Amino acid sequence: MPKTRVEAFSDGVIAIIITIMVLELRAPHSADMAALAPLIPVFLSYVLSFVFIGIYWNNHHHLLQAAERVNGAILWANLHLLFWLSLIPFATAWMGENHFASVPVALYGAVLLMAGLAYYVLCRALIAHHGADSLLAVAVGADRKGQLSAILLAAAVPLAFASPRLACGLYLLVAVMWLVPDRRIERAVATRSRGS
Amino acid sequence: MPKTRVEAFSDGVIAIIITIMVLELRAPHSADMAALAPLIPVFLSYVLSFVFIGIYWNNHHHLLQAAERVNGAILWANLHLLFWLSLIPFATAWMGENHFASVPVALYGAVLLMAGLAYYVLCRALIAHHGADSLLAVAVGADRKGQLSAILLAAAVPLAFASPRLACGLYLLVAVMWLVPDRRIERAVATRSRGS
Amino acid sequence: MPKTRVEAFSDGVIAIIITIMVLELRAPHSADMAALAPLIPVFLSYVLSFVFIGIYWNNHHHLLQAAERVNGAILWANLHLLFWLSLIPFATAWMGENHFASVPVALYGAVLLMAGLAYYVLCRALIAHHGADSLLAVAVGADRKGQLSAILLAAAVPLAFASPRLACGLYLLVAVMWLVPDRRIERAVATRSRGS
Amino acid sequence: MPKTRVEAFSDGVIAIIITIMVLELRAPHSADMAALAPLIPVFLSYVLSFVFIGIYWNNHHHLLQAAERVNGAILWANLHLLFWLSLIPFATAWMGENHFASVPVALYGAVLLMAGLAYYVLCRALIAHHGADSLLAVAVGADRKGQLSAILLAAAVPLAFASPRLACGLYLLVAVMWLVPDRRIERAVATRSRGS
Repeated sequence: MPKTRVEAFSDGVIAIIITIMVLELRAPHSADMAALAPLIPVFLSYVLSFVFIGIYWNNHHHLLQAAERVNGAILWANLHLLFWLSLIPFATAWMGENHFASVPVALYGAVLLMAGLAYYVLCRALIAHHGADSLLAVAVGADRKGQLSAILLAAAVPLAFASPRLACGLYLLVAVMWLVPDRRIERAVATRSRGS
Repeated sequence: MPKTRVEAFSDGVIAIIITIMVLELRAPHSADMAALAPLIPVFLSYVLSFVFIGIYWNNHHHLLQAAERVNGAILWANLHLLFWLSLIPFATAWMGENHFASVPVALYGAVLLMAGLAYYVLCRALIAHHGADSLLAVAVGADRKGQLSAILLAAAVPLAFASPRLACGLYLLVAVMWLVPDRRIERAVATRSRGS
Repeated sequence: MPKTRVEAFSDGVIAIIITIMVLELRAPHSADMAALAPLIPVFLSYVLSFVFIGIYWNNHHHLLQAAERVNGAILWANLHLLFWLSLIPFATAWMGENHFASVPVALYGAVLLMAGLAYYVLCRALIAHHGADSLLAVAVGADRKGQLSAILLAAAVPLAFASPRLACGLYLLVAVMWLVPDRRIERAVATRSRGS
Repeated sequence: MPKTRVEAFSDGVIAIIITIMVLELRAPHSADMAALAPLIPVFLSYVLSFVFIGIYWNNHHHLLQAAERVNGAILWANLHLLFWLSLIPFATAWMGENHFASVPVALYGAVLLMAGLAYYVLCRALIAHHGADSLLAVAVGADRKGQLSAILLAAAVPLAFASPRLACGLYLLVAVMWLVPDRRIERAVATRSRGS
């Protein structure tokens, strides 16, 4: 089964997820500068989630670039990832509207953590289909960054109850860590192209 | 007529349908854990509908994989299917907001049943265009699973008035039944690829 | 300039337009059958608009199928068409919420008429780019159906003030007229394929 | 890395941005002509933003047409552009609802200016990847139009506090300036095709 439609459908869902979050930024009824102040936490949470969904799109793009074909299990692993990503707008809205309070910040981290696990499952399903010696398996490798992210997010969720600010700091750290695109896969694909 | 744009348009519509349902999960104004409790039925109905729309996307993907070309009748059969799928967010929202009450649960089943019939019509239109001996006709075959789903959904609609819980159980059963992707088509396509 | 991205962007916009209309079907707070009654005009206007946007997608699909390349003027003619189509959800909502009252019904027809004119302009821009002897020009031909639709819609707009019911009847007539896909283009494309 | 998925994802996001703006045009509860009057500023701001997003889509289309491949930096430069474009619906709604008052008009210009800078950064990232002698670099050239737009928008933002009407006039001027598609790139691509 070719992978083009999985890419197209994922692009569609991720494009909608990244865009509907902006609907939470409701235009205030008053026209003065002060009317924008209450929107600042909503805006900050939007920026954070935009970056996270951008990271997922980028990594998904790199991952499927290295993939060659898909099967039924991969389709469902992909839908499972999209499900957790689809909860990000809700978690973002709740966190932004409540000015980064403990419970919403913890929920936000939990949703990110579940999305991370779903991405890991998708990687495994793809590797199982392509073989442990495949370019894709080499490219994904040990995925240290993914493991570190999961540890940081798993720490941030309980931490949010003590200090939501510190938990948000961990989310920022994870985001910054991923903003650098996955050179490993880029390099592996480049090597293959040169070889062929 | 090639099939690529039908796939792209269907991907777009299904991606939007699966994503706008999450807009019903409105962020509560309070930031404590208890504020999430009233959202539980809304969340459960979202999960159920996400799975159903995921099933339709998967089956649609397999079906059009086996197809080779489309005509005007197929375009309309496809739009007809998308129409019934587009009513799922409404039925989901009504069911979730009313905590799985009888009438909304019955309506939900009726919409799923109509989507199932529309999918059947789409299969017939595709088979009529490709011929009864085509790979597609062989791959779709007698479609026992589709028939069984229709029977279960047709039973669930009146049952919802007696016991909405049992009707929801039948919906779950249908979902689980379909979570296994359509191996028949996958196998038939694989056979063709090997043959050619 | 190849046409693929124009098709993809149009598919995206039309998919969103056809889907966001369903957001007007808001889940009632009560769970009994009677709660659905006020939604009937909203539902009927949704069905009508779904069919019209489906018609536009189908015709757009056929038209760009026959096209071979695009230029800047065609990109803008296409965006102009998408603009009028994007107003259909608003006109639909206003008509449905006001139970097919005169002014909303007239506005609905006016938006459809403008979309029809925009489609005509797009056809002209495509023919100007492909040449009057091109397959596309032959396939579009005199476009009697388009002209008749424009006349009927232009008549329905003032008629809505006298009898919104009759105006809606004309909209239905136009929709039924177009439900039959454009055989001319299908035939012309088929002839070309056979010839080559 | 091929560019197809960047195009598809950008098409999806831009299609959603251009379409969700119409959700601000809420159907009035009354059915008479006068009920449309308060919507006029909302409608005008929608038209202006539709044109601006249409311009960005067109230019993005031309730019990626001339591009041959992408890398991680380009993916992020593209997401950065989409971020600023995603704020246009918010700025549009605020401006429309407040009848083109000073602060919303200034914010609107600021968002357009940031989108313009993001587009400039994307051009630079693409040129850095393709080389200063590439077709793309030649096609983008000195980008006088982009520079002039930035100057006009940077002037319009403070001007909005003195006269929002004049600032809007400058926005209109920028829009008209860009409505003519980027002939330079079209010409360069045409030259290449002829040469090869």
